[in-house]
Amino acid sequence: MPRDDHQRNSERSSDRIRQVRRLIQDRQERERTGLFATEGVRPIVQAFEHDWEIETLIAAPELLESPLGRSLVRQGRRAGIPVLELTAESFRGLAVAEEPQGIAAVARQRWETLPETQPTSGLCWVALETVQSPGNLGSIVRTSEAVGGAGLLLIGGAIDPYQPAVVRASMGALFAQRLVRTSPAELAAWKQRTGGLLVGTSPGARTDYREVRYEPPLVLCMGWERQGLSRKVYSLCDVMVRIPMVGESDSLNLAVATGVMLYEIFNQRRAV
Amino acid sequence: MPRDDHQRNSERSSDRIRQVRRLIQDRQERERTGLFATEGVRPIVQAFEHDWEIETLIAAPELLESPLGRSLVRQGRRAGIPVLELTAESFRGLAVAEEPQGIAAVARQRWETLPETQPTSGLCWVALETVQSPGNLGSIVRTSEAVGGAGLLLIGGAIDPYQPAVVRASMGALFAQRLVRTSPAELAAWKQRTGGLLVGTSPGARTDYREVRYEPPLVLCMGWERQGLSRKVYSLCDVMVRIPMVGESDSLNLAVATGVMLYEIFNQRRAV
Repeated sequence: MPRDDHQRNSERSSDRIRQVRRLIQDRQERERTGLFATEGVRPIVQAFEHDWEIETLIAAPELLESPLGRSLVRQGRRAGIPVLELTAESFRGLAVAEEPQGIAAVARQRWETLPETQPTSGLCWVALETVQSPGNLGSIVRTSEAVGGAGLLLIGGAIDPYQPAVVRASMGALFAQRLVRTSPAELAAWKQRTGGLLVGTSPGARTDYREVRYEPPLVLCMGWERQGLSRKVYSLCDVMVRIPMVGESDSLNLAVATGVMLYEIFNQRRAV
Repeated sequence: MPRDDHQRNSERSSDRIRQVRRLIQDRQERERTGLFATEGVRPIVQAFEHDWEIETLIAAPELLESPLGRSLVRQGRRAGIPVLELTAESFRGLAVAEEPQGIAAVARQRWETLPETQPTSGLCWVALETVQSPGNLGSIVRTSEAVGGAGLLLIGGAIDPYQPAVVRASMGALFAQRLVRTSPAELAAWKQRTGGLLVGTSPGARTDYREVRYEPPLVLCMGWERQGLSRKVYSLCDVMVRIPMVGESDSLNLAVATGVMLYEIFNQRRAV
């Protein structure tokens, strides 16, 4: 290859690395482009399986020991996806994982709107307004996928489910869940149209969470740990339920509370 | 105060700051001294309420806006606990929290041994061998406290529940729970002596977690997410149960799985 081409290639590659780094670090960049970055074999397997649009695969052959990981790269190449090959060092500079597996991807975000979703799809929807910890959000996605939940309704703009820590904590489940960005007004219209049940949770609610029959269409509204649900969402809820506690704690971890609620709903459904 | 005293005081204070920093950062230092450090109003309220031995209170009056926090410092002084006063800057250098509340404490670790615990105390014990994330461990402690669990049996030496991220994620619940360091052999002897039930969890187990009647004395053994329970602990379990899943995930987040198990046990008990 003539020197000029070499140089151009290497410049192009540095540009791509910078872009991936921005997608990892910067929410605005993710929103401007509609893209996000993810790393590790498992999430990328899930992304392929659920037909996510992958823009670029990034591979560090020296690190990519997993045969499954290597076959993903081959599969990507066959599908015409550009593959950016990096040295182990460059990849480590980019990777968030402590022990990077040598594979990452830039993929297109996938959003649905509330009016276009099927109200009764899945076990139920989980609605969230704010979440402090990306790890919690990822765990919630993971639990929702495990019980056959439809996905997440994200009310307002506070939550970015495409940040790397969320995708990672979801263990790839994000790629098997639906993501809807919505608003209290849209949720009110949805409720009117579908006759769906909106259930909110609050440590101070009167109704025990096991006293309610959870029937679809169903939205489970989980508030932010400190503040609870916003007044707008609270007022949309048909019933507020409490997960009982006997200790001195006044709340559970948000991901744990969501897990307890989702398994109650799941258990009621599978008992039928 | 004469200049020499001033200097000696300031040296002593720097020494104390260094010691606190070591207790925050270094497990070996925590084990050597039997001490640990914690910060924030809520955990320290809990430590006082449950009579933990507090060696030193650390206060930054400029940051300590909470009236409850200030009264903790007064309470400590009255009880003869040394109070190390720091500038906001020094305190921020020490604090792990993003928005430090201006109060921290050095306290003595509290450990029990399995033979001395009351087998039927609390709802049940949660036994853990390894936990990857301190946030998960803290959440487990928080859930255990919420359902009236006795505390944690830590099998082997892998887990340090006194690391700051665990205490913080427990939201102070750690101070209301009992901590036991134990071994498979001791657990076997305990089982023999008390006739207690050991329940293990595994995604591949045949028994649905809701098919078991959970009666005290009861130990719930939660394995490490990737590896599951060690062979030794596995062979001690009377029954292995599965939390059913319908998605592609093969496991839940450890704190979520523990929460689902603990609420099943709690619901069975409170339904009686």
